[in-house]
Amino acid sequence: MTKHGTLGVAVIGTGRMGADHVRRINAVTSGARVAAVVDIDAERAKQLADGIDGCTAYTDPAGAMASPDVDAVLIASPGPVHEAALLQAFERDLPVLCEKPLTPDAASALRVLEAEQKLGHRRVQVGFMRRYDAEYLKLKALLDSGQFGRTLLLHCRHRNASTPPGFTSQMMINDSVVHEIDTTRWLLEQEITAVTVLRPRPSSAAPDGLADPQFVLFETAGGAVVDVEIFVNCGWGYQVQCEAVCESGSARVGDGHAMVTNAAGRWGGEIDADFVSRFEDAYDREVQQWVDATRRGEVEGPTAWDGYAAAAVCEAGVRAQATGERTSTNLVERPALYR
Amino acid sequence: MTKHGTLGVAVIGTGRMGADHVRRINAVTSGARVAAVVDIDAERAKQLADGIDGCTAYTDPAGAMASPDVDAVLIASPGPVHEAALLQAFERDLPVLCEKPLTPDAASALRVLEAEQKLGHRRVQVGFMRRYDAEYLKLKALLDSGQFGRTLLLHCRHRNASTPPGFTSQMMINDSVVHEIDTTRWLLEQEITAVTVLRPRPSSAAPDGLADPQFVLFETAGGAVVDVEIFVNCGWGYQVQCEAVCESGSARVGDGHAMVTNAAGRWGGEIDADFVSRFEDAYDREVQQWVDATRRGEVEGPTAWDGYAAAAVCEAGVRAQATGERTSTNLVERPALYR
Amino acid sequence: MTKHGTLGVAVIGTGRMGADHVRRINAVTSGARVAAVVDIDAERAKQLADGIDGCTAYTDPAGAMASPDVDAVLIASPGPVHEAALLQAFERDLPVLCEKPLTPDAASALRVLEAEQKLGHRRVQVGFMRRYDAEYLKLKALLDSGQFGRTLLLHCRHRNASTPPGFTSQMMINDSVVHEIDTTRWLLEQEITAVTVLRPRPSSAAPDGLADPQFVLFETAGGAVVDVEIFVNCGWGYQVQCEAVCESGSARVGDGHAMVTNAAGRWGGEIDADFVSRFEDAYDREVQQWVDATRRGEVEGPTAWDGYAAAAVCEAGVRAQATGERTSTNLVERPALYR
Amino acid sequence: MTKHGTLGVAVIGTGRMGADHVRRINAVTSGARVAAVVDIDAERAKQLADGIDGCTAYTDPAGAMASPDVDAVLIASPGPVHEAALLQAFERDLPVLCEKPLTPDAASALRVLEAEQKLGHRRVQVGFMRRYDAEYLKLKALLDSGQFGRTLLLHCRHRNASTPPGFTSQMMINDSVVHEIDTTRWLLEQEITAVTVLRPRPSSAAPDGLADPQFVLFETAGGAVVDVEIFVNCGWGYQVQCEAVCESGSARVGDGHAMVTNAAGRWGGEIDADFVSRFEDAYDREVQQWVDATRRGEVEGPTAWDGYAAAAVCEAGVRAQATGERTSTNLVERPALYR
Repeated sequence: MTKHGTLGVAVIGTGRMGADHVRRINAVTSGARVAAVVDIDAERAKQLADGIDGCTAYTDPAGAMASPDVDAVLIASPGPVHEAALLQAFERDLPVLCEKPLTPDAASALRVLEAEQKLGHRRVQVGFMRRYDAEYLKLKALLDSGQFGRTLLLHCRHRNASTPPGFTSQMMINDSVVHEIDTTRWLLEQEITAVTVLRPRPSSAAPDGLADPQFVLFETAGGAVVDVEIFVNCGWGYQVQCEAVCESGSARVGDGHAMVTNAAGRWGGEIDADFVSRFEDAYDREVQQWVDATRRGEVEGPTAWDGYAAAAVCEAGVRAQATGERTSTNLVERPALYR
Repeated sequence: MTKHGTLGVAVIGTGRMGADHVRRINAVTSGARVAAVVDIDAERAKQLADGIDGCTAYTDPAGAMASPDVDAVLIASPGPVHEAALLQAFERDLPVLCEKPLTPDAASALRVLEAEQKLGHRRVQVGFMRRYDAEYLKLKALLDSGQFGRTLLLHCRHRNASTPPGFTSQMMINDSVVHEIDTTRWLLEQEITAVTVLRPRPSSAAPDGLADPQFVLFETAGGAVVDVEIFVNCGWGYQVQCEAVCESGSARVGDGHAMVTNAAGRWGGEIDADFVSRFEDAYDREVQQWVDATRRGEVEGPTAWDGYAAAAVCEAGVRAQATGERTSTNLVERPALYR
Repeated sequence: MTKHGTLGVAVIGTGRMGADHVRRINAVTSGARVAAVVDIDAERAKQLADGIDGCTAYTDPAGAMASPDVDAVLIASPGPVHEAALLQAFERDLPVLCEKPLTPDAASALRVLEAEQKLGHRRVQVGFMRRYDAEYLKLKALLDSGQFGRTLLLHCRHRNASTPPGFTSQMMINDSVVHEIDTTRWLLEQEITAVTVLRPRPSSAAPDGLADPQFVLFETAGGAVVDVEIFVNCGWGYQVQCEAVCESGSARVGDGHAMVTNAAGRWGGEIDADFVSRFEDAYDREVQQWVDATRRGEVEGPTAWDGYAAAAVCEAGVRAQATGERTSTNLVERPALYR
Repeated sequence: MTKHGTLGVAVIGTGRMGADHVRRINAVTSGARVAAVVDIDAERAKQLADGIDGCTAYTDPAGAMASPDVDAVLIASPGPVHEAALLQAFERDLPVLCEKPLTPDAASALRVLEAEQKLGHRRVQVGFMRRYDAEYLKLKALLDSGQFGRTLLLHCRHRNASTPPGFTSQMMINDSVVHEIDTTRWLLEQEITAVTVLRPRPSSAAPDGLADPQFVLFETAGGAVVDVEIFVNCGWGYQVQCEAVCESGSARVGDGHAMVTNAAGRWGGEIDADFVSRFEDAYDREVQQWVDATRRGEVEGPTAWDGYAAAAVCEAGVRAQATGERTSTNLVERPALYR
C-alpha cells in the first residue's frame, strides 16, 4: 500500500455505478484512493483518470491489476464480464468488491466459487448494499437478538417510479427481486427452497409486454414464508420496505419518515426518488467497511456463495414467473470455505 | 312502530355479541329500542329483559317475531341456527340484521338466498362491520374515486393476541379471514376466483395442532391479487391493516396512531387489545345505519349474496388449507335481486 | 319524561351549532328527542320544527321551558343571551347543556354561578367538547394515572384554515384559545394564574388588523407552563394538538393519522378541514353523556365554575394581548358547590 | 499537504470530543489524517499518537502548529482555552475547525473576531454540527425555497436523559440551548433580539438546585417568535425536535422514526440515547466538509460571527434566567468580513 497505508483501488467499469464508486473512493472513503480506472472505452477511462491525482487509465482489467499501485479491485462493469475479471483478480490474489450480480447465472457463479476455493481463502465481497443500510442493520440486530423469537414471515415491498426502456419481466427478478433474495437469506440465515410468482393484471402504466406488478413468494429451509411486491412502474417513487413477523413481535423498516410537513390540507413527507438517494449511505458504508477490512488483511461481507445462491434462486424465480408454478431451487452443497 | 317511530328490535341470541347489541340498541342507537330478547336459556333471557323498560323475554325466535312490539330482528345467535331464524323472519317479512356468518356453509346460504328471492325484495343485512369502520370507509371512497387508478394488490394483516380453547385452523378461515374475504369483495367489487394457503412453520406460541400463522392468497375476477397474513396468537394485540396498491398510488389503513408517548427510551402508542375496542365505532355505525334505513323502509348494506359468496370462498379456503393447492371457488350465478 | 323515558329537549338557538344539535339529538343520540326549538326568527324555528315528529317551535326560551314536553334545555344561542336563558332554566329547575361560552364575561358568569348556588344543586353542563374527544380522554387518563409523574409543560397548537369576516384578535382568545384554557384546567386540575401573549410579525395571509398567529403562555397554580400557538388563518387545515411533558414521559394527541397514502412522490394523509369533522365524535359523546346523566337525574361534565374560570382567564388574556405584559388572573374563591 | 493532498490535522484537546474527532479523521474522513495531537496531559497525548501512523504528540498547541506536517487545526479543548489556540492559529494563518463554543463569553469572542479581521480573511469554522444534520438541512432547504412563505414561529424541544454531576442552570443555556440559538439564527437568517426564560416547577428528577425543565423564548429581528423546551433530566432519552410554522405550511424534524416494532401491546420505536448516536452523521459530514473546503483553500460553515452572536445571546439568556424578565440582546455591528 501507499504511504500511510492508503489502499490503491482499481475501479473496473466506469458507467453509472462505476463512476459513482470512483467519486466515493476519492471523496468519501477514508484510507483509499483510486489508483486505476478501467473501461473498454479508452477515452472515457482517460478522462476520468486525468481528474484524479496518481490515477492511471486502462482498457483491460489485467493491465490495471498488474500495476504495483493497485492493492484491490472494485468490479462495476456489466455482469457478463464479471467472471473474467474475478478470475484475473484471483490469479494475483487481489481482494475484490464485486457489484451484484456476482455473475449473471448459477453455472458461471459456480465456476467463480470453485476458483476461489482453489485459492484456499476468501477474496470476494459481493455488493449487496442493503446489508449496510442503517435500518436493515437495526432489523438484523433485532432478529439476531432473539427477543421476538423466530421469524415466521417477511413482507417486502420493492417499488420503482419507472423503468428504463428495455426492462423485461426477467429483469424484475434478476435486477430487482435479487435484493429481496439476498436480504431474506441474510436476515433469516436460511436458504430459499421454493419460489412462486403471481401476476396480477398489469398496471396500465406498465410498458407493453411487462407484467408489472408481480407478487413473489419464497419458502425457506426453516419454514418461513416471504412475500415480495415488485412494482417497477408505480410512478410515485422508490420504496423498499420490509416487515419481519416473529413469534412475539414484528418490526418494519423502510417507511422513511424524516421531515414531516403540513400544507394544503395534507400532512406527510417526501418519498425517495430512486435507490441512489435511498441507499447512498449504505453504499458509503459498504465501501468503507470493505476498505477497512482489506487494509486489515481481512475479507468480510456477502460471499461468493451468497452471489451464487442469489443467482440460483433468480433462475428458479424466472422459471416460476414463466410457468406460474411453485418452483423448487436447486443449490449445490455449501463448500466448507463458506460455512 | 312505537311512538315517535322508535323501532322495536328483537335480539336473538344473548351471548357476547348479542348482549353487546342489546346494550348498544338501548344506550347508543338513536330511534330504536329492544322490544324482545331471545335465548334458549330462558333464565338468561329473562334477566336481560327485566333490566329494560318494555322488553319481553322469549326462548324461541318465532315467538318474539309474533309480538306486535317487534318491528325488526337482530340475529346474534350461533351460526348453525341462523338459517331457521332467517326463514322465520322472512315469513313475517321482517327486516333482519344478521351477524356474520349468514349461515355456516354455502349450501345453507343458498337456501336463504332462494327464500329471500321468493319474497321478491331484500330483507337481510349481513353484519360485516368493517364496511362501517371510518378508516375502511375512507379507503373505499378513495378507491371508488378512481384517482389512483385500478387496484392491483391488497396487502392485509389480521392479528389476534390469542385464541380461545378449541380454536381450529378452519376457524382461522371461517371466523377470521372471512372478514378479509368480505372487505376484498366490497373494496374491489369483484368476486374471488381462487384461494391458496401457505403454512409457514408455526409459532411456538401456537396451541398444539394449530398452524398459526398462515398466509392466504386470493385471486379476483378482475385480476387483482390479495394477500392476508392471519396470525391469531401473535401475542402483541389486535391489528387489522390493509394496504391497497393501485396504478398510481397506494393507501394503508389500520395503523391506529392515536396518542403517541415518549417514555423509557421508546416512542409509540398502544395497540388495541381486541376487536371490541378496534371496531366499537363500526358496530355502532352499522346498527345505527340499519335502524335508520329500516325506519325509512329500506334495506342497505351487505346482502345475503355477500353472505353466500363469503361462505363459498371460505369453503374453497378450507380446502386450499388442507391440500396446499391453489383452489378455485365455485359460485352460482348472481341472482337479479342482488345485482 | 315521555314513554320509555325519552328525554324531551328544547334546543335554544338554531344557527349552525343549534341546527347541528337538533340533527344530533334527532338522529344520533339515544334516549332523547327534540321537543322544542327556539329562535327569535319564528319562520326559521317553525321550518325546523315541522320536520320533526312532536316538536314545537317557539320564539322565546321561557315559552319552550314551560312546555310539559320539555325535560331539559340545550342552549346554542349567541353568548350574550345565555345568561337570561340560564336563569329561566334555573327557575324551572331544568337541566341545561350550555354551549361555550357560559356567558361572554366573568361578571355575568359570576351571576350565573350565584343563581345556581341558590338552587343548591348543579344544573348546568358547559359545552367544552374536547373533554369528550377520544384522544384527549386518553391523555387525561394517562396523566391521571400518574405513571409519568407530574405534568410540567403543555405544548398546544390550535390552527384554523381561515377566519370568517369580522374575526378579531380578541376572538382569538375568547372563541379559540378558550378551548386550551379549559383543557389546561381540566387536564392539570389547576387554575391558570397568569397569561402572557406574544405577537410575532403577522402572516401575510392574515386579514388586515388581525395579529395572526399569536403565542399564548399560561402559568398555573401548580407551577406548570403552558404554551399555545393560535394561528387562525394558517390555510392548510384544522389542527388541534397537545403534548403533555411530564416528569418521566411525554404524550401527544392530535396528530390525526388515519389513512396513509403514497402518491406522486409524497406519503401522508389528510388534515381535517374544520372543527366539525375533527370533533364530531366528541360532540356526539358530549350530548349522549349529558342525556344519559340527565335521565339518571345527575349532572356531570364541565361546571358553571369551569365556564366562569374560562371567562376570567379570557379577560386576562385579552388584557395581556393588548399590553404585551404578563397579566395575572383574578378569580373569586371557589364556591363549595363546585369543589 | 502530504502526498496526494492529504490534509494533516492537529487535534487540540483529547477529551471525549477530541478523541472522537481523532477517530473520525483517522477512520471516517476522506483526504485527511491526524498529524498531531495536543493535550496538557503528555501521557494521554502520547498514548493516542502512538496508535496512529505519522502522528506526533504535543503538550502545547503552538508546538503542534509549528510542525510542517500540520496543515489545519481542530480545537476540541475546553472553552476557556479556545481563545489562545485560535490566536496562535491566526498567527500561522492556519484554517481552524473550533468546537463550540467559540469562546465562553461575548467579550473574548469579540477579540477573536477582531483578530480574524486583521488577517483580512476567514480562517475559523465553528462546530455547530446541527447545520450538517440531514433533517435540519432538509428543513433549511424548505425554508429557503420560500414555498411555505415567511417563517413565523419555531417550536423547539431539546431533551437529554440526564445530566452529569455539576451541571448548572447556566449550562442549560450555554451548553444546551446554544444549539437552538444557532439553529434559529441559521434557519431564519435573523439575529435574536430578546430572550425570556420561564421556569416551571422543577421535575422531581431534577438534581437539587437545577430548575429543570425551562422554557425559553426568543424574539428575532424579523419578528419571529421561537420557543425552546429545554429538559435535561427527562429520563426517557435524547430528543431534538424543531417545527417551523410558516405562512402557508409547517415542517417538523427530529421525530426520528426508523424501525417500527409491534410487541407487547405497543407499537413504536427507539429514542436515541444521546447526542452521539443522534448526530454522529452530522459530525461526520461537518468534518468532511471542513476538510474538503480546506483542501480547496476555502472556508465555509458557521463563522466566528456566529460564535460571537451565540455567546452574546447566551449572556442575555443567563440574565433572563436569573431575573425572569424579557432581556434584550446587545450585539456589536456586524463587520464587513461576515456579511
